[in-house]
Amino acid sequence: MDTKNIGLRGIEVADTRISNIDGKRGKLIYRGYDILDLTKNSTFEETAYLLLYDGLPTKEQLVEFKRKLVEARFIPKQMQINMGNWRKDADPMDMLQAFVSALAGYYDEEFSTKESSYEKAINLIAKVPTIVASWHRIRNGLKLIDPDPSLSHAANFLYMMSGEKPDEGIEKIFDICLILHADHTFNASTFTARQVASTRAHMYSAASAAIGALSGELHGGANTEVMKMLLDIQDIQKVETWIKDAMNKGDRIMGMGHAVYRTYDPRAQVLKELSRKVAVRTGEPWFDITEKIETTTISEMKKQKDRDIYPNVDLYSASIYYMLKIPVDLNTPIFAISRVVGWAAHIIEEKFAEAAPKPALYRPKATYVGKYCGPQGCEYKSLDLRE
Amino acid sequence: MDTKNIGLRGIEVADTRISNIDGKRGKLIYRGYDILDLTKNSTFEETAYLLLYDGLPTKEQLVEFKRKLVEARFIPKQMQINMGNWRKDADPMDMLQAFVSALAGYYDEEFSTKESSYEKAINLIAKVPTIVASWHRIRNGLKLIDPDPSLSHAANFLYMMSGEKPDEGIEKIFDICLILHADHTFNASTFTARQVASTRAHMYSAASAAIGALSGELHGGANTEVMKMLLDIQDIQKVETWIKDAMNKGDRIMGMGHAVYRTYDPRAQVLKELSRKVAVRTGEPWFDITEKIETTTISEMKKQKDRDIYPNVDLYSASIYYMLKIPVDLNTPIFAISRVVGWAAHIIEEKFAEAAPKPALYRPKATYVGKYCGPQGCEYKSLDLRE
Repeated sequence: MDTKNIGLRGIEVADTRISNIDGKRGKLIYRGYDILDLTKNSTFEETAYLLLYDGLPTKEQLVEFKRKLVEARFIPKQMQINMGNWRKDADPMDMLQAFVSALAGYYDEEFSTKESSYEKAINLIAKVPTIVASWHRIRNGLKLIDPDPSLSHAANFLYMMSGEKPDEGIEKIFDICLILHADHTFNASTFTARQVASTRAHMYSAASAAIGALSGELHGGANTEVMKMLLDIQDIQKVETWIKDAMNKGDRIMGMGHAVYRTYDPRAQVLKELSRKVAVRTGEPWFDITEKIETTTISEMKKQKDRDIYPNVDLYSASIYYMLKIPVDLNTPIFAISRVVGWAAHIIEEKFAEAAPKPALYRPKATYVGKYCGPQGCEYKSLDLRE
Repeated sequence: MDTKNIGLRGIEVADTRISNIDGKRGKLIYRGYDILDLTKNSTFEETAYLLLYDGLPTKEQLVEFKRKLVEARFIPKQMQINMGNWRKDADPMDMLQAFVSALAGYYDEEFSTKESSYEKAINLIAKVPTIVASWHRIRNGLKLIDPDPSLSHAANFLYMMSGEKPDEGIEKIFDICLILHADHTFNASTFTARQVASTRAHMYSAASAAIGALSGELHGGANTEVMKMLLDIQDIQKVETWIKDAMNKGDRIMGMGHAVYRTYDPRAQVLKELSRKVAVRTGEPWFDITEKIETTTISEMKKQKDRDIYPNVDLYSASIYYMLKIPVDLNTPIFAISRVVGWAAHIIEEKFAEAAPKPALYRPKATYVGKYCGPQGCEYKSLDLRE
């Protein structure tokens, strides 16, 4: 095969109006707006509106959008009963993939117009946090907590998960985390969502597939791996040895390096400050350990390979979630709670693109390198004649 | 963007040993063997073994493989109870996507070795027919039927679905249909499976995503659309007018034309003869109507656009399934019952490729064509200042 196509890196597959990464300058843009401005000024709900509708909302539009999100937060009781039948140690990402797909079994899944697809998007964005929080309560034998309409998207999730309403500081920090993860152009899960949508499958189907892609440790699973590393290291004194050992073995340091950014990932920049802030509040060592992992990896990479490396979005989010008392295996589901906004926007763009070149069903080429006995194929021997 | 990349047509993304299409000569090869030889001599179980293990089985290997498949046919009772909570009019493909994903909630989902992934593959191939048949019985309020270990894969599905054991002729016809649909290189659902697997997600997760892609009307959903067309036409006298009207409106004729074959699809060739055979048995008009659709579309395409067009795999499978009394909306799930073999083989190849170039996480490039106010992004106006 054409080895320059491996992983489709650098191969342009479609136009998008949704987001843009400037890898050289370390900029991430949602619908024209710098992610740093949005984390400073916006909220998750407003950013979700921006990503879906290609513009910031007016006051009335935002009120209406929030109202719809709040109304759609409940999931069918029957779904929660079904969750109770799963293995209690099942991976929350598996649960999420299955129950997002199952939404189609409870709600009308007609998906013929752009309008109705926005309704499905809102339903999905509103329900994913409830699915995650419900499963977390159920697996721990805890009483389910209904969504609270007075709370923001960020605060409501933390409340449904833990039973405690977060203070304003924590709510804001978590809200910013959600803003930062909401979209990132054609990453593996978003491209999966677009690909499924390219067959004309409906939104729940495409989003469920994207959750599958996000669950992989090379994609959304990476933040969980970062926290496992932090817990394994435990002590700032041990960071240098741990990192050097890992790099000498040729292991990747999770949370470091990115396929697209050639400088500091702007999301990591924001998350680093948030992690520092939470650590000051809680007095825990996880920020300091993470920062030491960053500096050690950078200097070792320089020394060993004369190459620059930078933290990615997963490095500092892990410690933040941990200090917010979020169970480690919910890190990736929280990624999904946010990224579902991007998926929905991309699914709509894939199916209803108005400008040429319009996307088409993705069907790449494979290079056959298997058995070949000529164009007629190998001789089929009957079972009796085989050895 | 680079418009020649649209839909990734012709873009090589990976090597494969699993199957090969010779679009010019109309050949489909599974692991070196011509599909026509396999439909003549092999069975679905043997073909599944071939696709998974890269070689035809010995007698002992085949006995062992069949034994494992038969043992794995049962699905958890609890899953069937959960199905009972779905809307009775839910799309069976939605049900299948959700419950394949849910397999991870019942079975251990560790997926670290090539060995264990073969076990998962067998579990999946064995259970997909049971999931489809269970749902069909449940939605119709019928008693569930346990798998029968004395029956072949093909016969057992028809039995679990209908309650009647098929005669040998019907069993053979259905078995050939399953052989024909088992793999087809990097079609949209298989590429989706590979893409999800490229993040290191596990087999159930990747297969569930593939089912989502297969459900789209531009992919696996097409055979359902063909049957809808047949039922709409009803009468062979009406075919010509119907097809001409549709083509004059610029509509695609479902079941005709393929992205890769430039001659007769070998699968369509076999299915055409099977459809003819079943029609002789049942005395129904669906084969004749389908054949008339084929000839009319070919001659109209020649006349209108001076282009050749050929039937694809969906054209004749629709009438066969209908005459076998399979409900129209199970056509695509039956496609999945067979294609899951190909998905499993591709997932294993994607994750455990031994020869270079090895596949990598798929992350294509998007071309940003949205709002641009310079590298710093557009000015964020506070809510009060927006119009």
